[in-house]
Amino acid sequence: MCGKLRNNQDMKTLLLNCDMGESLGPWVMGLDAEVMPYVDCANIACGFHASDPSTMRRTVQLAVQHDVRIGAHPAYPDLVGFGRRSMACSPAEVEDLVLYQLGALDAICRAEGTRVAYLKPHGALYNDMLHQPELLRAVMTACAAFNPQLPLMLLARRDNTVPQTMASELGLTLWQEAFADRTYTPEGLLTPRNQPGAVLHDAEHILTQALTLARGETLRASDGSALQLQVDTLCVHGDNPHSVAIVRQLRSALDSIQPP
Amino acid sequence: MCGKLRNNQDMKTLLLNCDMGESLGPWVMGLDAEVMPYVDCANIACGFHASDPSTMRRTVQLAVQHDVRIGAHPAYPDLVGFGRRSMACSPAEVEDLVLYQLGALDAICRAEGTRVAYLKPHGALYNDMLHQPELLRAVMTACAAFNPQLPLMLLARRDNTVPQTMASELGLTLWQEAFADRTYTPEGLLTPRNQPGAVLHDAEHILTQALTLARGETLRASDGSALQLQVDTLCVHGDNPHSVAIVRQLRSALDSIQPP
Amino acid sequence: MCGKLRNNQDMKTLLLNCDMGESLGPWVMGLDAEVMPYVDCANIACGFHASDPSTMRRTVQLAVQHDVRIGAHPAYPDLVGFGRRSMACSPAEVEDLVLYQLGALDAICRAEGTRVAYLKPHGALYNDMLHQPELLRAVMTACAAFNPQLPLMLLARRDNTVPQTMASELGLTLWQEAFADRTYTPEGLLTPRNQPGAVLHDAEHILTQALTLARGETLRASDGSALQLQVDTLCVHGDNPHSVAIVRQLRSALDSIQPP
Amino acid sequence: MCGKLRNNQDMKTLLLNCDMGESLGPWVMGLDAEVMPYVDCANIACGFHASDPSTMRRTVQLAVQHDVRIGAHPAYPDLVGFGRRSMACSPAEVEDLVLYQLGALDAICRAEGTRVAYLKPHGALYNDMLHQPELLRAVMTACAAFNPQLPLMLLARRDNTVPQTMASELGLTLWQEAFADRTYTPEGLLTPRNQPGAVLHDAEHILTQALTLARGETLRASDGSALQLQVDTLCVHGDNPHSVAIVRQLRSALDSIQPP
Repeated sequence: MCGKLRNNQDMKTLLLNCDMGESLGPWVMGLDAEVMPYVDCANIACGFHASDPSTMRRTVQLAVQHDVRIGAHPAYPDLVGFGRRSMACSPAEVEDLVLYQLGALDAICRAEGTRVAYLKPHGALYNDMLHQPELLRAVMTACAAFNPQLPLMLLARRDNTVPQTMASELGLTLWQEAFADRTYTPEGLLTPRNQPGAVLHDAEHILTQALTLARGETLRASDGSALQLQVDTLCVHGDNPHSVAIVRQLRSALDSIQPP
Repeated sequence: MCGKLRNNQDMKTLLLNCDMGESLGPWVMGLDAEVMPYVDCANIACGFHASDPSTMRRTVQLAVQHDVRIGAHPAYPDLVGFGRRSMACSPAEVEDLVLYQLGALDAICRAEGTRVAYLKPHGALYNDMLHQPELLRAVMTACAAFNPQLPLMLLARRDNTVPQTMASELGLTLWQEAFADRTYTPEGLLTPRNQPGAVLHDAEHILTQALTLARGETLRASDGSALQLQVDTLCVHGDNPHSVAIVRQLRSALDSIQPP
Repeated sequence: MCGKLRNNQDMKTLLLNCDMGESLGPWVMGLDAEVMPYVDCANIACGFHASDPSTMRRTVQLAVQHDVRIGAHPAYPDLVGFGRRSMACSPAEVEDLVLYQLGALDAICRAEGTRVAYLKPHGALYNDMLHQPELLRAVMTACAAFNPQLPLMLLARRDNTVPQTMASELGLTLWQEAFADRTYTPEGLLTPRNQPGAVLHDAEHILTQALTLARGETLRASDGSALQLQVDTLCVHGDNPHSVAIVRQLRSALDSIQPP
Repeated sequence: MCGKLRNNQDMKTLLLNCDMGESLGPWVMGLDAEVMPYVDCANIACGFHASDPSTMRRTVQLAVQHDVRIGAHPAYPDLVGFGRRSMACSPAEVEDLVLYQLGALDAICRAEGTRVAYLKPHGALYNDMLHQPELLRAVMTACAAFNPQLPLMLLARRDNTVPQTMASELGLTLWQEAFADRTYTPEGLLTPRNQPGAVLHDAEHILTQALTLARGETLRASDGSALQLQVDTLCVHGDNPHSVAIVRQLRSALDSIQPP
């Protein structure tokens, strides 16, 4: 817990963020209650790819209870595909659906005495905005219109000039995120999941990569080349007991090198 | 326009409110652009019974352009039934879905430099809350949690003690609405639409009833008895050219008796 | 397995039916693969309260693999409420939404070389049709229009004259179902779940009640009075390992008293 | 009308097909009642991009009344985008969602004494299958699994070898469709709508192009080159009075050159 309090005071430390509130009506997904105590930031689904108003309410309550920052996690409107299927939405449509979901979650936060603290798009929308600048601008425009104090979380890449320039124009802060359990291409992108070695499953490897990132040291890309990423937050997972156990270890490891 | 500016200054005058933004994707409903210049309050659909984020955006822009107050118009989740089919949602579910819709619309308002100014539930939810105090309390609780400054619009009845007491407890303001084109039962409820004489179609009768209400005079219920209602706002309709023409006449008539 | 083959030949034996295919996109519900080998009839969700086209496909494949009859399990359009919230749909709307869901599942069955074999409405629709004859007629009319050979599964009550008369008029067959794990009111209805003693949890009590029903003997209602039900099928559950274990025991017990 | 009866007997004549049943709950789209008497084939929406069970029922009734063939018009699940936004569905997902929609409409047809007579995908799905053979195969596999007698309607191009070979393998019939109101690229594709001259608005030009196609003569592509298309059906529109008037003229013109 002191690690989390520390992070609240000093934004330079590496935050742990985790997708949460991905249940829907009677369907349960994720071990939210188990993982919440160990993370800094909860990316909460807003009803378009998962969740519903009452699931959002319960998830916000859980985050408040553990003093965890709440992020809006908007997506394309696609429950069956869980927001993982790219949809040809126009930039204007993306701007409006991000606003809609941001506001919906924020209202539920207000009813629990808190507010949305950052924005992280989900799934296909997250990926599409990395490759289509007009969609990235749409997401940033929605964020700035809602509250320019809200940081936008996106993938830390070797070269993040495009989003950084755009964010500066709009007065937005970026929170760059890395993955401790994914390998990287020489370009500094995530190795696609359908390629061998894309995902690290071994706890030791994951911890090593996390600590490398936390110390600001260089990673090795898949071709062995050095990869220097600017990282503000690590994305972790609460899907199952194994991933929750890794989050607990990450929390301890980070606390040990991020003294108060 | 001067009538509207006047109303902005003096809440005692009779406000005209109208359902708006009921289009959905490619489907158009309502003559919003034609009727917006003549009303004070736009009840804007929030995506559960009608509308979508981009339709909400356009409707908010139109309201801002005409200096019209924006109300959130939340409903049960039922596009096909247009929110007119009662659904057995629990009070907690109603509280959460009202919050969700309130916040979604408010975020879109923020992007257009304005805010949601009041709350009016739609269709079956509007009716159900009149007859089920636990649902009324759920709606009021959502409103108070979001912003206790937001008035809640509901039906003016002969006896509104229940909602008034509840609103006082929660620190909420009520805006009681009447209908100029509907007749009333002796109990001060609307004559059900499936009964003869429930709806007034004649412009002259509608104007007469509106002016009666505006002057604070007594109506005649369907059995001829006197009915005294406390009315803050009249509900008008922008469905078709005939109803828009009536709104224009109502606007003129009210302006003539509500001098600046 | 021989018990199931027997049932295929002789409809007088007691069939075990179970809700299946209640997953949705990425969300998993129910131990379908574990329970399918032990039941006779799979009530498969059709996309309105649960499931999606690809989940339906996989569930039909599993039923075919185990030679289990497939029933359409239509519901009100309400994913978040899982079809358990009553909705004020008109009889015509109910007739049409039952047809829609029946046909959707039947097309998927055709792609797997089988067909829908019976109809069992789900959740609030199942309950509402027991209490509103016009809804029951709507369900039956849909069933008869689609295929009058399809039996309709509904609750066995002390007095089933209304549905039996209606079914005769429409040329439909009824399959009356009972619950081995629920107690009954003196009227022969299920004790509401919110009352103490409504649900039997103990495997021995459940088996005893099942065998009583299978032998055509009288039950004891909650006031101790005798209750004679005409029963064609027992509803069982595959939600969790405990309920699956009970289904296996029921299968064995029924096979032992229903010799080939 | 005699033209339509003729077409029922002789499939070599040019059929007029039109999108129908695109209303949704309270929202009306299209002049179905006005255009139905003049077409041969009604492409009826199945609830994923437009329509709902009761709208489908009414549309089928109207088609039956006018002796018009009914085609299933399935789409991606996207009401707000009207099925016009491409979605990254897998081939297996497309196969299943086409089956689902085919069956849903067919059940409603059965209740009106008719059956689905052909398949025509809608919007983005229609376009995507022209460019992604694995999606085309998924659509064809669904069609063949449901009923290999059902023709699949798709765009007549200069070179239709790919779909023709695939259809032969699966034992399917193709109905190739052309547009009388669209111009063509040298490759025999439709000129994209965002290019000048893509759409013909003048009734005379539309009629001339329709008669050219009906006589099996060559069109002129946008660069003036000759374009020979094999055409079974013309796509017409019933959106507004102008387009309905053109359909009436097309009906008369075709009847005059397609004698009984």
